Amino acid sequence: MERISASTIRRLSGYVRVLDDLVQQGESIASSKELAERTGVTSAQVRKDLSHFGSFGRRGYGYEVDSLRTAIRGILGLSRRWRVAIVGAGNVGTALFSYKEFRARGFDVVAVFDNAPERIGQRLGDDLVVEPMGRFAEIARERAVEIGVIATPARAAQEAADVVVGAGVKALLNFAPRKLAVPRGVTLRDVNLAVELESLAFALRAGAR
Amino acid sequence: MERISASTIRRLSGYVRVLDDLVQQGESIASSKELAERTGVTSAQVRKDLSHFGSFGRRGYGYEVDSLRTAIRGILGLSRRWRVAIVGAGNVGTALFSYKEFRARGFDVVAVFDNAPERIGQRLGDDLVVEPMGRFAEIARERAVEIGVIATPARAAQEAADVVVGAGVKALLNFAPRKLAVPRGVTLRDVNLAVELESLAFALRAGAR
Repeated sequence: MERISASTIRRLSGYVRVLDDLVQQGESIASSKELAERTGVTSAQVRKDLSHFGSFGRRGYGYEVDSLRTAIRGILGLSRRWRVAIVGAGNVGTALFSYKEFRARGFDVVAVFDNAPERIGQRLGDDLVVEPMGRFAEIARERAVEIGVIATPARAAQEAADVVVGAGVKALLNFAPRKLAVPRGVTLRDVNLAVELESLAFALRAGAR
Repeated sequence: MERISASTIRRLSGYVRVLDDLVQQGESIASSKELAERTGVTSAQVRKDLSHFGSFGRRGYGYEVDSLRTAIRGILGLSRRWRVAIVGAGNVGTALFSYKEFRARGFDVVAVFDNAPERIGQRLGDDLVVEPMGRFAEIARERAVEIGVIATPARAAQEAADVVVGAGVKALLNFAPRKLAVPRGVTLRDVNLAVELESLAFALRAGAR
């Protein structure tokens, strides 16, 4: 499969959401214009993104909502569920644990870790307790963790990432405001919430949209 | 000033973080190569991004860390503080309230709102209590709110956004998994945490980096 950019993936995620809504509304056909308007991109962009993966629509007819949705979900790896561990049981970690959209989208949090003695053993939801970081490798293996979420303070983030990667986890989502080093073959995505606010500050300052 | 893309803004935020670190380490000069390596982009990209704003470096010498940092902070609108209101005092809203990086980066949460009777009046930190949504316009005016953060469930997000925009707030950061409609002249940024996980799922599935 050809290399696909992170921004294409983000748009594909957006199309899946719109297609989910259309299915719920009982729609069976969608035009690229409709997908474009509902996701905030151009029709040309929609057609280009979908063309990476073969031919889903018919000219002058539109896309079949249900089969396009199944196809994109398959492409994104969403036709199965994924097993996620969160490192850091502070405000960010516990909010992520409770974030319903993760489960709705196929991501199950199967373990939460922390180093702080007062947090270890704390109950989370119905099934989990906060586990000590020292047990990461063992528990990650038992529970077949595939994705690690770093939700520690900045100063602890690299050490946490090293433990997660050392346990064989190949994908990291990092919420700590620190650039992490990971070996080749490990995929890292950074979520920096302050960056989004900075981009708004810029827009306000520039008077741009 | 020419139009600058959201991804350029994100990279500029990244450069500021690296420059902050360099200042702390007592470094006075940085090369584009160094900025590039620490932010994970190419040197050519660094030079291109900075060229939008005039000439900060000298060939064969590098950038003056302190003055480049001040300049980018000014460009991003970070040489002043910004006043933020959070709508939704659930898990996401309270985690955002406690997210220290916001304050560190110049964003002060000056009000938190909710509709649920059991949340209204709840204390947050030292100075705030959760306010009812019905008082949004009044409080936003009193406290000069400039940025609204939507942290409600999906079904309540558009209504919340309408109230925020109706009160004259021109910038929204949306954490609800719902595409919001806002009038021209209002800047909207979406943060969809599930999308980031989906992008990792794709990488794992594709066996890409």
